[in-house]
Formats: sequence, C-alpha cells, structure tokens
Amino acid sequence: MSVHGVTLGDVLGEHRRGRPDGLAVVDADVRLTYPRLDERVNRLAAALAADGVTPGERVLWLGRNSFRILELLLACARLGAICCPANWRQSADELTFVLDDLRPAVVVFEESEAAGQARAQSGTQARWIVAGEEYEAYLAVGTPAEPAVEVTPDRPVLALYTAAFDGRPAAALLSHSALIAHSMAILHIRQMEDGFTYLDCGPLFHVGTMMFCLATFQLGGTNVFTPAYDPKEVCRLIEAERCTQAFLFGPMIDQLVEANSGGTYDLSSLRFVSHSPEWDAMITVDDSPWCASKMGGYGQTEVGGMLTFLGLAPGGQGYAGRPSPLAHVRILDPAGNEVPPGETGEICARGAGVFSGYWNRPELNAAKTAGGWHHTGDLGRREPDGTLTFIGPRLRMIKSANENIYPAEVERALKSHEAVADAAVIGVPDPEWGQNVKAIIVLKEGTSLTPEEVVEHVRSQIASYKKPRHVEFAESIPKKGYTPHYDALDATYGGGGYPGQ
Amino acid sequence: MSVHGVTLGDVLGEHRRGRPDGLAVVDADVRLTYPRLDERVNRLAAALAADGVTPGERVLWLGRNSFRILELLLACARLGAICCPANWRQSADELTFVLDDLRPAVVVFEESEAAGQARAQSGTQARWIVAGEEYEAYLAVGTPAEPAVEVTPDRPVLALYTAAFDGRPAAALLSHSALIAHSMAILHIRQMEDGFTYLDCGPLFHVGTMMFCLATFQLGGTNVFTPAYDPKEVCRLIEAERCTQAFLFGPMIDQLVEANSGGTYDLSSLRFVSHSPEWDAMITVDDSPWCASKMGGYGQTEVGGMLTFLGLAPGGQGYAGRPSPLAHVRILDPAGNEVPPGETGEICARGAGVFSGYWNRPELNAAKTAGGWHHTGDLGRREPDGTLTFIGPRLRMIKSANENIYPAEVERALKSHEAVADAAVIGVPDPEWGQNVKAIIVLKEGTSLTPEEVVEHVRSQIASYKKPRHVEFAESIPKKGYTPHYDALDATYGGGGYPGQ
Repeated sequence: MSVHGVTLGDVLGEHRRGRPDGLAVVDADVRLTYPRLDERVNRLAAALAADGVTPGERVLWLGRNSFRILELLLACARLGAICCPANWRQSADELTFVLDDLRPAVVVFEESEAAGQARAQSGTQARWIVAGEEYEAYLAVGTPAEPAVEVTPDRPVLALYTAAFDGRPAAALLSHSALIAHSMAILHIRQMEDGFTYLDCGPLFHVGTMMFCLATFQLGGTNVFTPAYDPKEVCRLIEAERCTQAFLFGPMIDQLVEANSGGTYDLSSLRFVSHSPEWDAMITVDDSPWCASKMGGYGQTEVGGMLTFLGLAPGGQGYAGRPSPLAHVRILDPAGNEVPPGETGEICARGAGVFSGYWNRPELNAAKTAGGWHHTGDLGRREPDGTLTFIGPRLRMIKSANENIYPAEVERALKSHEAVADAAVIGVPDPEWGQNVKAIIVLKEGTSLTPEEVVEHVRSQIASYKKPRHVEFAESIPKKGYTPHYDALDATYGGGGYPGQ
Repeated sequence: MSVHGVTLGDVLGEHRRGRPDGLAVVDADVRLTYPRLDERVNRLAAALAADGVTPGERVLWLGRNSFRILELLLACARLGAICCPANWRQSADELTFVLDDLRPAVVVFEESEAAGQARAQSGTQARWIVAGEEYEAYLAVGTPAEPAVEVTPDRPVLALYTAAFDGRPAAALLSHSALIAHSMAILHIRQMEDGFTYLDCGPLFHVGTMMFCLATFQLGGTNVFTPAYDPKEVCRLIEAERCTQAFLFGPMIDQLVEANSGGTYDLSSLRFVSHSPEWDAMITVDDSPWCASKMGGYGQTEVGGMLTFLGLAPGGQGYAGRPSPLAHVRILDPAGNEVPPGETGEICARGAGVFSGYWNRPELNAAKTAGGWHHTGDLGRREPDGTLTFIGPRLRMIKSANENIYPAEVERALKSHEAVADAAVIGVPDPEWGQNVKAIIVLKEGTSLTPEEVVEHVRSQIASYKKPRHVEFAESIPKKGYTPHYDALDATYGGGGYPGQ
C-alpha cells in the first residue's frame, strides 16, 4: 500500500478513531456515531463479500434517500466495489435497463411496483434485499472486522447514471481519489467547519446532493437523511438537528418560507444564501464564497459535481466563474486546439475530480478523453477577464464554409433579443458552403420582427459567419428534455448535411 | 497524459488564462501578472533545459527570499526537474555538503563569502548564475513557448533540507500531487478567498513559509517577497500591498507592534490571529479555523507542512488537533501495530501530501515507509476524544522488562512538575530487566525534590512501568539543537544497553 493512498474507507477509519462520539448519520430514529457506522459498514461489507461482491462488482440501491446509501457506498469502498444509487422515480422499463446494464451482484431496494416489475423483467441474476428488517438481518451476520481487501484510491466506487449521449443513459464512475478531491474543493469554497450538519433533502442519485453528503462525510460532520423533499419535515429537521445546510434552491426555498410562515420552526442554524427578506430573516445568511453572491458555477456528474465556481471569481464577467483549484480548463475546437478568449468551444478539463469513464462504454470513453482532456460535451468560452461562461450543450455542430458553428451559441444570441420567446438553430445543406444556418423563431406575444432584423441582431452579438441565412417563424419549438428536438426540427425545416453525416 | 493529472505547471497555465490581469508576484520593483510570470517561467525553463536540466535533475537556489525561487520552482515543474531553495545562512562547509549531496546542474545564487567558498570546495560541476542581471540575461535567451515535456504529478518538484536523522541533513522531496493536496488543506483551513495576498517574510527554505506561498499560488493570489524579516519593512509592505497574511508568530508579532507603535502604518488588511490588545487593534482578527484559537497543529517538512490542524478540533483534548481531511493517521508501536488510545507510539500517516522520500537515501526511505505508513519519527497519542497530541521526537527507545519506553514521554511527565526546570531520560543497562529508566533533573531555583517525589510524580502521570528507577540531579542538561544530547548524557550518567545496540 502506498503512503499516498487514502480511500473513502480510510476516511471512515480515521473518523472512527478521531471522532469516537461524532454523530455521522441521522435518519428518522437511526442515529449512528462514526465508530458505530464503521462497525455496520464492516458487517455489511462482509455480507456483500459473501454474496460475491469482489473488487469491481456493483451494488445497486433502488429507493428513496436513506442512510443505507452511505453505508452501501462505504461498504463498497472497503471492498473495492462500486455502489450505484439509482433514480427510483424511473419506470419499470428504465429500471430494467439499469439492471441489465450495470449487472449488480446485490440490489438493496424499497418495495415498489416498478422495482418489482423490473426485477421480473431483468435478465440479471442478483441477490435482492429489502431495505429495513431484511437489510438489518443481512448486515448482522457479517463480522465487524475491516475486510482484508487492498483498495487503491484510483478504483471507481460510486456510479451515477447520467443523461443519454448515445440514446441510452450511462453510469459515470467516480473513484475514491475523484470524490475526495471534489470534497476538498467543496470544503474550501463553502468554508465548511467542524460540526457541519448537512440535510440530504435532495435526491442522492443526483450529484448535487451527493457532493455535499460526501464533503460532510470527509470533514467528519453529520449527514441527516430524509426520504424526499417535504417542506414541513425539512423545517422540523433543520430545527431538531441544528442543520448547517440543506439541498435547496429557488422554488424549494419559497416552499420552506411558506411552510414556516408562522415562524413555527427555528431555522437559524442554517447558514445559506440570501433569497428573500422573509427567508433571510429565518436563517443565517452565509458569507462563504459558495453562498456570498450566486451559488454554483458549472458542473456535471462526470467531474464529481462542480468544475468551476462563481465564488472564485467575484464580480467576474463569465457566468461560470473560475475552475476549482484542483482543475485545469481549456476551451477546445473539434480538432483539439485551444480557441482564443471570446470564442466558443468545448469545455474540456483535467483534474483529480474527473471521472473514470462510463460503465461499459469503451467507445464513448475514448471519445470523452481524446487528447488527454475530459470533453464535457458542453460549450463555453473565456471572457476577456479570464472567467468562464457556459453556453449550452454541444449537441451538434454546423459546418459552413469550413467554419464550425454551434447551434447553442447562435440560439443564445437569438434569445437575447427582447422580442424572442424561444429559438432553435439547425443546418440546412448548401452545395457551395456545405451547410447554412437556419433559425426557427418563436416571437413573444404582441411583438414582430423581420428576418433581416433577426439576422442583424445576431451579427451584433457574435461573429458574422455564425448569423442565420434563413429565418422561419413558428408557434413553438419541439423539445427533448430541456433542449430543442433537433431531429424533429431537421425533419420539419429541411435540416441536414451535418459534418460526419 | 491522464485527464486526472494536474501539475504546478498546469496551475500556472490555468492562472495565465483565468487571471490575465492577476498580480502573481511582488518583490521590490518587480511586479508580475500571471501571464508575465508564465512567460518568464517558460523562458527560464528553456534556458535551464539547454544547461542539461532534464527530468529528475536538480536546480539549487542559494540566497535570501526572492520571487526567483517561485520562478525556479515553476520552471523545474515544467521540466519535471527538482528545485531546492537552500538555507543560505549555512556555513561554507554546510553549503558544500548540500552541493555534493544534491549535485545540481544549475545554481542560482546571491554572492556571499560562504557561497564562494562552497563553490570552490565542492566537487560538483554546475552552471553558476548570479541572481540579478546575470539571471535576467540567462532567462531572456530562452523561448517563451511552454516546454514540450510531459510531466506526471507524482514527480518530485521541490526539495527542502531537513534536520539530520543519520548524522547528515537530507533533502525531502515533495511531488506536484503532494504540494497541490497540501495547498488544498491550507485553502480550506485558512478559508483563503479570491484576492489573498501573502507576505513571504519567513525563510522560503522552510516549509512553514513555503506552504503558504504555494497555497496562495494555487488560489491565484499574490505573493509579496521580502529578502528577510525586517519589522519596519514588513509594516510598510503590509500597508502598500494590502497583505492578507504574513509569516508571523509570537516574538515577530511583538516586534511588529513595536515597529508600528505610533500607528504609522495601516495594517488593517492583515487578517490574522489575536495576540495582544495592541496587535488586535492594528489588524483584523480572523475567525477562520487556522486563526480562530491557536494557530497550527502538528507538521513536518516530510508531509508538505501540516499533518494535523488545531482548527479541526476546536476544544479538543489533544495539543495537535485532528488530521487534515486528506490524511489518515495511526499511532503505531515499533512492530507496526496500532496502540490503543491514551498510549504513546509513533505518529504514522498516509495521504496525498506525504513526501516522496529523501533524495539519495534509499535505506532511510525504506525505513520511513515500513508497512505502507509514513513514519514521522515523532511520538504522539490519541486522546479519549480522538484528537491527537504530539509528545516529542522519537529519538531513541528504552526497553525494560520487554516494555517500550520513549524518553520524550517520560521527560514530558517530569517537566509537568512545577519544581522541574529541565529533565532528560536515559536507559541504563540492567542484567535482569535489560534496561532501567534513569532521570536527570534540573530543579528550579529555590526548590527541592527527593528522588522518591520525582518517581511518584511520574507514576501519577503515566504508566507505572515508565517511571524512573534512578534519579540524578544536575546543573544543566547538555543539548543538541533543541533536544537533549543523549550520547553525552549516556557517557556522563552510565547509559547503554538500548535495543538494537
């Protein structure tokens, strides 16, 4: 074992020694100190090992938020295995896909119709264990001794499914090193201190909640779990457990303000972002770089959470701030060359927090790491002051007169016109130029624009060669998730001739 | 190149892009933005490469504090080479030892009698460059393009000489990964924010100043260099450059208070520890965990600076606090087994910040990493609350009735008696028990103690088998640096029979 290697299992081992009375986990009537968590994790690891969970094997969690997700993750950490908390809101068919894709050796689940159907449909042989009494009985059989498995920190330990790139979801694999590095960035930016108590009230199958759960664990703080977001219950837990932070943003905060309108609950332990006068009066407004102005930055599951932080560029021009001190960002063109400041390219990164590829997607992984850079699949640019702006997903590229044009960038320019309600951009074949840019525009009610005005507006915003040659007006833009449904738009408006097609 | 690897050269490259106007370095009339520093580092790297500085080669700095130390370190970073800022206060013979031990390809130096003599005495062939005009001319010849050398983050990049273990100093080698990891811990504990400006007024050949210099660099802040500690000049620089922090402790702070007694300088930009009413009125008292109560924790050059932090264990029982979130500590006995809480053993560690061994000391390195743990050479214990206490250096061990007894632990117990001014403990041969413990005591003026009272006091503090069998009173304890001169004590008081002898 290298003197440099620290795993999530080692972090737990340190907390067992360093925090004999430290509260690690609260979940309904479950309260576990770090030594108690350590013992349960060892028992669970022994039980999983007996079910064939050897290094590299997968364990799946199908259920709402629970302290068992942290136990399963840490047991997998001690075994060199991989834990995946799946999105329990998915349909039976979606869950079946996850089961057949990940092929877990063990599934711990909360009973539901979808889970039952998926179990019946899936071709994967796994041991299924019901969260609750069966899980407790399963764990009780294992020995409390730490498993004698040597785990190196570069091993994947957490798998989180992300949106489809090639038409099917893929599980992003995050190593011990990546999660620990990312936690350090969060500890730094959020200025987390001894006694930090995090309320896991967002979904733990999403990196946004998981990253704070893990940073709290890294620090030796307390994670309070609640099955799902319920405003009254969140208020009650913040008061009862003196929570320092919770997974909250805009609309969730408004719901809390409403739930606590009579001032029933004391939320003053919460140190969080300013939001509204009512909210600010209930909590303690935090001045850490994470909370001081706008939360966030730019991130994705594949970098363990956040790649850039607004708090590292106070007053900066870019909407995404500056990279984590552990990351290095370049804006690259499709050939892998860096583009100058002000020009749009793909956000690419290096850093200890970058993921280890997707489970079982060798071709996609090769493309994502081309040239030794993690390709985020998102577009961005450096502003003149060096800060970064996230433009949008790099879903496709138009090639016109040998110039690369990203629809997201042109759409951003179009939407900056006050009369434009929505916009999408496609490429239409052109015998001379390869492709031409076509804009489909939805106008706001009571406004009007000529095609010439649309083109002129884009030219005032970005390089002239990116301006539309054709403009069409429509009632609405078909969507696929949050982004335009480009295939449908191509079919309707004559798109085609894309590079590589 | 791995998508996970970030080197010090990459950090500089990110700041060049992300902070086009960011001030990296101030030193007298030198003011360098990050892009300018990046360009100079590339030129310097090209010049060094032309002088044979290939990966693994060493570059030596012989002089007082200077921005050139950071330039040399970063040029070495880009070349995969190793930079050593040597202690310029050393004698000609000591400098000769460093030259012949490290065998640098290039020496950049400030002219001095000792440096001149060492150069004449040393058998090492190196290119010698005077800091100043010659250095500027040397650097100007190089190209501004980044060197085409692939550097992995596990390569050593910084060498710092530490105290003798085997009778001669040894250069501790710190890798890119170790320095970056350590900086993250400092960024976290000190809650360093955008705009942080550090005054390097302690010696940069010592890890105490270097670790904050590097954390400031990691963050993209400003390092202000001053050749050596001069209270008036430090006051002037804090005001002129609006420094956030400086390398300062007790007596240095008192000197600053005196130098600024008329309130001549505005020191309010400094956010630092409370020290005295006069000091607290001059500065801004900082509430980060680094500054909130007592600064520090436990550290050594071999872990890149700090291994544990008091700020991670506010109110804890141990004098050393808790480990950095990136480290894992165990208290081990000589056989490599963990000792229970409350018992004394060697402080051992794992973590990304741990060094890569000493330059050219293979046997010592094997001993330091026995069993996959970095052996600090220092004694410590876990307190009942899990926090850590540093006892003292593990210089030697006494073996009595098969029990291990560390002199430093017994000395600490002896010195806790109010009548004891100083104390040292040796082992004397005993045919039955192997060795017996002998205490040599220096009493405070006007006090008296019987040997029985001494023994009884130790028994009230630590395990009975560690108590002295023999007590002698003396006028003084001979010293070797800060620790008792044990060989001299053995000769005077009949010590011997140590295990392994």
